[in-house]
Amino acid sequence: MSENTEPVLVNGEPTPSIAVADRGLSYGDGVFETIAVVEYKPKLWDRHLARLESGCERLGFESPPRGAWVGDLERLALPRFGVLRISATRGIGGQGYAPPLSPRPTRIVRCLPAPARPAEWWTEGVAVRFCAMRLSIQPALAGIKHLNRLEQVMARREWQTPEIAEGLMESTDGRVIEATATNLIVDRGDDLCIPNTEDCGVDGVMQTWLLERANAMGATVERDTLRRDDLPGDRGGVMLTNSLIGLWPVHSIAGMPLPLSPWVARLQTEIARAKTALMPAVTGA
Amino acid sequence: MSENTEPVLVNGEPTPSIAVADRGLSYGDGVFETIAVVEYKPKLWDRHLARLESGCERLGFESPPRGAWVGDLERLALPRFGVLRISATRGIGGQGYAPPLSPRPTRIVRCLPAPARPAEWWTEGVAVRFCAMRLSIQPALAGIKHLNRLEQVMARREWQTPEIAEGLMESTDGRVIEATATNLIVDRGDDLCIPNTEDCGVDGVMQTWLLERANAMGATVERDTLRRDDLPGDRGGVMLTNSLIGLWPVHSIAGMPLPLSPWVARLQTEIARAKTALMPAVTGA
Repeated sequence: MSENTEPVLVNGEPTPSIAVADRGLSYGDGVFETIAVVEYKPKLWDRHLARLESGCERLGFESPPRGAWVGDLERLALPRFGVLRISATRGIGGQGYAPPLSPRPTRIVRCLPAPARPAEWWTEGVAVRFCAMRLSIQPALAGIKHLNRLEQVMARREWQTPEIAEGLMESTDGRVIEATATNLIVDRGDDLCIPNTEDCGVDGVMQTWLLERANAMGATVERDTLRRDDLPGDRGGVMLTNSLIGLWPVHSIAGMPLPLSPWVARLQTEIARAKTALMPAVTGA
Repeated sequence: MSENTEPVLVNGEPTPSIAVADRGLSYGDGVFETIAVVEYKPKLWDRHLARLESGCERLGFESPPRGAWVGDLERLALPRFGVLRISATRGIGGQGYAPPLSPRPTRIVRCLPAPARPAEWWTEGVAVRFCAMRLSIQPALAGIKHLNRLEQVMARREWQTPEIAEGLMESTDGRVIEATATNLIVDRGDDLCIPNTEDCGVDGVMQTWLLERANAMGATVERDTLRRDDLPGDRGGVMLTNSLIGLWPVHSIAGMPLPLSPWVARLQTEIARAKTALMPAVTGA
């Protein structure tokens, strides 16, 4: 399906375009969610919507009503497997950076094909690198999934080799925060650790869901400051997660081999059981 | 003129909309310029185009050819006084954050009415405040005018009182960098000083032009690190500048009165003579 004919709704209307004057384009003034569609249904929908709504609140505009999104999804006729991208921008108006006093947000719903990835990335793991591009420290925008994503674009530009699945990103002060499009879960042997996102990074919907499952299975889950040297080299392991892929083990970082965490199989089983991501075990790919 | 009927060209075609799939909307993956139109002509055009081209280069895509922009301007029929906003995005394509290997940039040209401001802001000066919102430190994106402008939007949201013309923004480590939509020129008595933009902030086209004029008139011009306490309280003065307004003196910061720099009149005379901005002395407003 070409990008020109993808199903798109803007404020409920089927159209592949939005106003040039929209603040989403002018300033990246909005938020978005990337959601797995499995068996015609958007997965972890309530959690994605909650993060999007929290993002709108942080940016200071009212998020589109839940019923409007649901109406959009009914109109779109979701595929059996795919990707749903929903965005809310502050809409048109205001004077320069000054937002309008009563914004009328723009609601965008796009349906995209599921990206193809080698099946062994789920079983044997992925090779990752460190990005030279760093994440800036900005508590006012940390945690939410806003449309200002040049740091991720610049980081993802650093490599073209298809064997490298992801790039780890550090904050400008040297803490490992996340990868360009995935969140980290680090098995430190005694606990599962995820980086702090108080001043940097995005809170992962799938990451949170998996940690709740792990916690229910007896894992100790911690938020902590992680640096390159804190990534486990002997026991434990490093995992990458997002709403599309579910969970990948990392088999090497910058060529250095890593052990496979026993949590990989346990958490992938949880995903396959609940069908919350586009894993081969779920899609039959 | 309403925002729906403004003259807009996208890749040379008259249309008020762009593709939802454009990376400018998805990620803020692009750059823009805001240019004064005086007597039917875009002012400081070569300098704006040079900054835009340097931004595209920093982001890693080829900027639209100069002839294409010029063709757009001929097609638009610029007004006697107004604002021209031109943008270049990385266009459609790629996989997620990964840009396409051969981007086809999107070229956007919009013509907007000149904003109305009280004439005394040029003569008596403006009241400004300090913003709580800070600018993050990101050397990879500093200096250029990219489309990731949520920090400016969030800062500009902090006040609605029309008496406050601008808000000064500090970096997360407490250096005064710029205001939300204007650059600073600080008259320290012995020299004219502007903040460093190596890791933060935008290099101002009008700011640079004015400093060249001042330098030609004998001023010593320095880049320096400025903190709140470095802003002059007794002699010298603080000025705000951008391509639309030209130059405003600041008469008070957060209620604290400031002296009027002798450079205000000199530099405004230069602007009026060269007609490089939408000052009342230029537009007759």
